[in-house]
Amino acid sequence: MWDRVAIVGVGLIGGSIGMGLRSRGLARTIVGIGRNEQRLQLAKDRGAVSWWTGDLGQGVAEADLIVVCTPVAHIVEHVRQASRDCPAHALITDAGSTKATICRTLAARWEGGGHFVGSHPMAGSEKSGAQSAEPDLFEGCITVVTPTAETREEHVEAVSGFWQSLGARVVRTSPEDHDRAVAAVSHLPHLVASALAAAASPDDLLLAAGGWRDTTRVASADAALWQQIFTDNRASVLQSLDKFEKVLSQWRRALEENQATDLVRLLEAGKRNRDSVGN
Amino acid sequence: MWDRVAIVGVGLIGGSIGMGLRSRGLARTIVGIGRNEQRLQLAKDRGAVSWWTGDLGQGVAEADLIVVCTPVAHIVEHVRQASRDCPAHALITDAGSTKATICRTLAARWEGGGHFVGSHPMAGSEKSGAQSAEPDLFEGCITVVTPTAETREEHVEAVSGFWQSLGARVVRTSPEDHDRAVAAVSHLPHLVASALAAAASPDDLLLAAGGWRDTTRVASADAALWQQIFTDNRASVLQSLDKFEKVLSQWRRALEENQATDLVRLLEAGKRNRDSVGN
Repeated sequence: MWDRVAIVGVGLIGGSIGMGLRSRGLARTIVGIGRNEQRLQLAKDRGAVSWWTGDLGQGVAEADLIVVCTPVAHIVEHVRQASRDCPAHALITDAGSTKATICRTLAARWEGGGHFVGSHPMAGSEKSGAQSAEPDLFEGCITVVTPTAETREEHVEAVSGFWQSLGARVVRTSPEDHDRAVAAVSHLPHLVASALAAAASPDDLLLAAGGWRDTTRVASADAALWQQIFTDNRASVLQSLDKFEKVLSQWRRALEENQATDLVRLLEAGKRNRDSVGN
Repeated sequence: MWDRVAIVGVGLIGGSIGMGLRSRGLARTIVGIGRNEQRLQLAKDRGAVSWWTGDLGQGVAEADLIVVCTPVAHIVEHVRQASRDCPAHALITDAGSTKATICRTLAARWEGGGHFVGSHPMAGSEKSGAQSAEPDLFEGCITVVTPTAETREEHVEAVSGFWQSLGARVVRTSPEDHDRAVAAVSHLPHLVASALAAAASPDDLLLAAGGWRDTTRVASADAALWQQIFTDNRASVLQSLDKFEKVLSQWRRALEENQATDLVRLLEAGKRNRDSVGN
């Protein structure tokens, strides 16, 4: 039970955190912080926050927990602002899709109060905004918590407990391991889904069925948010792209040379990995 | 209302056709035809067929409508067998994922009775078997009907009416246009989903979340069935792969040169196409 939680950025993730805390009775007061009054009011109307403010310093002043849910390119700046005005005991975390730049930059120079531990709840890829928020968004959702050598164990545990209280399954890795892994299982799939969608002509799309819709679904996500993610994690994404293109060139050869057994072998390799994850 | 419908191959598609006919009261008798007695009995237990036989000639002898739902590489042979023993008025169609080879081979030499019109219901990509069949599988499902110059209009309409009676939305194209379009919106996505799944390492898969699961879902489909589809349609698939790899190389360049505006432009192109199709 938190006395006061401040959420910076009340879109899909921030809004769902507020609604999840509220519906589980986990916070006495939830403060929404943002720049856009309409979006903040929408979050309040949906029950995600108790009250809201456009003033970050005021919003975090008495907060025990601060969750920064703004786009990747703004997280460092918002965490630093929060640390300037929050109580000394406050726990600060974020929900950014990349971790190395954010955690290393903050660890290299930490001036204010509070204690930062990086997080990445892997939820909600193609929708956005508080209108899509739901209290159970994090139920069963993998959430990565990424301490550095500077992070104290008690703070890692407190942040892990916070996500678990919303139903998340917490995985702990270094910021760098996180970025390498999500390049493979999140950023590359996003890139590929987008390229696949872009490569289809309007005439072809008349026949787009369930397979196309599943494979390209994440391409509907916000372009500006994802540009920041790709820019931040581009080295790891390029490495994953190399690996993917190697498999693709095996496919090309099998098709060009009409090698049925190679096609079966390729299809079975994909099926094995896919089946290992489940529905 | 059909007096007798014969279904050759009672897996996901054949089983769902039988269950759909039954639940809508569209056929007096439904005959299941196949080689595997266990699978045939499962189809009967699920209510997909009235009775079954391993003898194709016996199964189609009094059928008004014959639907061949076997793997792509066997469809021509099964349609030919059916046409030898079916009544002269019988309508024959199939459910194969490729159409040019099947329709052109059959049109070039048609000896038996009955009238063939090719079909492709675009449903059920990653599951298989009568255990996954459902009576409403074709509800809202795009089904392509592919007449050739030799096909009579009344037969095209009868086959279209059959799929519509199961809830499908029928689209009519030539077999060649069908194969080009599905290469882009079904076969290439399948290839890419499989390559993406294969390119992930077991360690990365610990972080596989909703985006990865959506993007790779179809890679769980039966490898042998899909090898036949790729082999049959490899020329069109290679053309679609060319187009996809062009987009991929633009992504590579934007990442290597750290061009944020190019990344946004690429993401927006994918989003535009994806959003045009809907959920």
